Amino acid sequence: MSKPKVVILGAGFGGLTAARSLADIADVTLVDRHNFQTFLPLLYQVSTAGLAADHVAYPVRGALRKTSVQFRMGSPIVLDHINKTIKLDSSELLSFDYLIVAVGSVTNDFGIPGVNEHCLGMKSVVEALGIRAEVMRRFEDLCRLTDNTELSITVIGGGPTGVEMAGALAELKRGPLKSDQAGAAKRIHIRLVEAGPRLLPSFAPALSERTKRDLEKLGVEVLVNTGVKQAKSLSLVFNNDEEIASEISIWTAGVKCAPVVNDLLLPMDGGRVSVSPSLQVTNYENVFAIGDIAGAKGADGRFLPMVAPVAMQQARFVAKQIARLNAGETPTNFKYVDKGSMATIGRHKAVVEVKGLRIGGAVAWYMWLWLHLFYLLGGRNKIGTMADWTWNYLTFDRGNRHIIDIA
Amino acid sequence: MSKPKVVILGAGFGGLTAARSLADIADVTLVDRHNFQTFLPLLYQVSTAGLAADHVAYPVRGALRKTSVQFRMGSPIVLDHINKTIKLDSSELLSFDYLIVAVGSVTNDFGIPGVNEHCLGMKSVVEALGIRAEVMRRFEDLCRLTDNTELSITVIGGGPTGVEMAGALAELKRGPLKSDQAGAAKRIHIRLVEAGPRLLPSFAPALSERTKRDLEKLGVEVLVNTGVKQAKSLSLVFNNDEEIASEISIWTAGVKCAPVVNDLLLPMDGGRVSVSPSLQVTNYENVFAIGDIAGAKGADGRFLPMVAPVAMQQARFVAKQIARLNAGETPTNFKYVDKGSMATIGRHKAVVEVKGLRIGGAVAWYMWLWLHLFYLLGGRNKIGTMADWTWNYLTFDRGNRHIIDIA
Repeated sequence: MSKPKVVILGAGFGGLTAARSLADIADVTLVDRHNFQTFLPLLYQVSTAGLAADHVAYPVRGALRKTSVQFRMGSPIVLDHINKTIKLDSSELLSFDYLIVAVGSVTNDFGIPGVNEHCLGMKSVVEALGIRAEVMRRFEDLCRLTDNTELSITVIGGGPTGVEMAGALAELKRGPLKSDQAGAAKRIHIRLVEAGPRLLPSFAPALSERTKRDLEKLGVEVLVNTGVKQAKSLSLVFNNDEEIASEISIWTAGVKCAPVVNDLLLPMDGGRVSVSPSLQVTNYENVFAIGDIAGAKGADGRFLPMVAPVAMQQARFVAKQIARLNAGETPTNFKYVDKGSMATIGRHKAVVEVKGLRIGGAVAWYMWLWLHLFYLLGGRNKIGTMADWTWNYLTFDRGNRHIIDIA
Repeated sequence: MSKPKVVILGAGFGGLTAARSLADIADVTLVDRHNFQTFLPLLYQVSTAGLAADHVAYPVRGALRKTSVQFRMGSPIVLDHINKTIKLDSSELLSFDYLIVAVGSVTNDFGIPGVNEHCLGMKSVVEALGIRAEVMRRFEDLCRLTDNTELSITVIGGGPTGVEMAGALAELKRGPLKSDQAGAAKRIHIRLVEAGPRLLPSFAPALSERTKRDLEKLGVEVLVNTGVKQAKSLSLVFNNDEEIASEISIWTAGVKCAPVVNDLLLPMDGGRVSVSPSLQVTNYENVFAIGDIAGAKGADGRFLPMVAPVAMQQARFVAKQIARLNAGETPTNFKYVDKGSMATIGRHKAVVEVKGLRIGGAVAWYMWLWLHLFYLLGGRNKIGTMADWTWNYLTFDRGNRHIIDIA
């Protein structure tokens, strides 16, 4: 039995896990347009000056040391199913026996006018640095003005990312910015806007309520049942036609399949790549789709959530299927084991939901803390993050408030 | 005696030291175009993936906490000596009794054609991230190619910055990049080019020799007596008309007065702001110039070096002169106390020259290490830097190899 050639597109949670799982049984080439993996769950801490940008990224080649996995930095441009090759933008042609597509998701503006132009996204290190620069620059403007000029920051989307972002902004305002210049910090107004009837819709209603209360205690104005109809350069228009001032609008309302799956002409189903229960792409049994792009459904018939645990479980599952197929066996069906969800709101404030168990407050916060440290790639990032967090925790300060202008 | 109003332009080593020294005896406003101070002596470690970008920057407002000093982010555009005001690009007008100009230096291309377009500078966090991105991107290209394509990196300028840069690049190649992909790392060629007859011309000749030897041991090709006549997009032309391939050319050959001193119409003398022995700008006795821009001369009649210790001593000196002038006393003359120089080459390799004492090797390296940690602003940066350094030291690795594209 010879080692099959496997190409994996995307070095996120799914792609990197798949590469490591397959390293011993296949000739693996991993492809990503960045030379690093981004630890997306902590990106909001870069935006809010809590963590150094370099500590939520990890070099892909570092993660692959001591394995035989090859890495190529680049983007796929042409997928040829007949010759089983994929062409990269460097013109390199990679041939494969099995292909795993794990290219992840991008911000979804749902076609709402102005969102793309006037709202800041939160899906990359560069975008996170952009939010940080914008917040700190507008804060410097406030420091200069002695009138009552206010700065309104609106976070749109009440899912975990929106909740964490709004909470971290509130703590940035109450702590470091207040120490920087209390008069200016006081004039910052933070709002969280959710189109549905409650925050964190995937959690139990009681935790949604607790999250709203916790955010309000931190000074965040929480608006539910409030859809955004249009984004303008310094304001937002709600579905009821009310227009509010919003100098900085941060869009965390949703994500969609990365558009590269369209370039590769993969069959789609409801906005995701159409897959069999074994995660094989429809019509192409040697191509697998995992993570945010995969149209896999749960027992309830709905798409699985676009979260890291799904991608990582699917990655390990697909690695096993490739071993089975290579041994002439038939593939099995993927089943997602939901280990629970968590979201942090602020210091000693978080919500955790694990198999019916619902926890809030400090205990949940410590659970969140250790789990994220545990999953953060690499010892150096762990140490660096722990150093920054310890410093922030003890001093109520955040050191990474630099305006570094990015493309 | 009322508190004088002092405006300080520039929050580098000079400006920030002056602000802190004057905080109790004056109403101080500090102005800088960034909201952070850059720890320039460690910038080369950002370029070579050793340190996180955020850890060589420190928020100015953080450095001014617990003082009464005001901060304004912005650039000065008009200096009015009659009304004693300075206008910022925000249109704000600051009035002063005393003005301290400490705007520092920018890269000097000495009018050599092509340098501005084709060489990378090393005077800001953004430029350091640019070098890191360029080195890592070209390394990724090498990893893809299986022929004998080489990557030539040339550092131009054999002063401390050039020496440190070349040494750190050599260690990046020999350690982390070799672990990433040995075949590609082998094909990187690092060159250090100096126009004069020896490296580190401000040090004793024996230390220059030792530095050259140490760099050559690390695999750096050192060329002295080699001036650059022209820079092209992928090559350099030397004074003897020899043209060498250089995919990445890093310019550390010199700095000059920041051009903003010309916009402010300050009197110049040999490329620096003309000052009296008490550092008062010629014709304007309530305006002081300190640091890289100040045309202060040493006992040898030559301009003082453009280094942090000069700027900091001048800052403390000027703070005292402002107190004297405000008390109706006459100013004294500035005298620079040279406490020595140091430059690091690589692990356990550095040179230190203190009052005739000349030290090389591991002892010098540890001295360099502790001194830089001591002067690095803020506890968080110290902890973060120590964490990164400890990690790099123990693992021979460098974790910050991310290509983050900047403007």
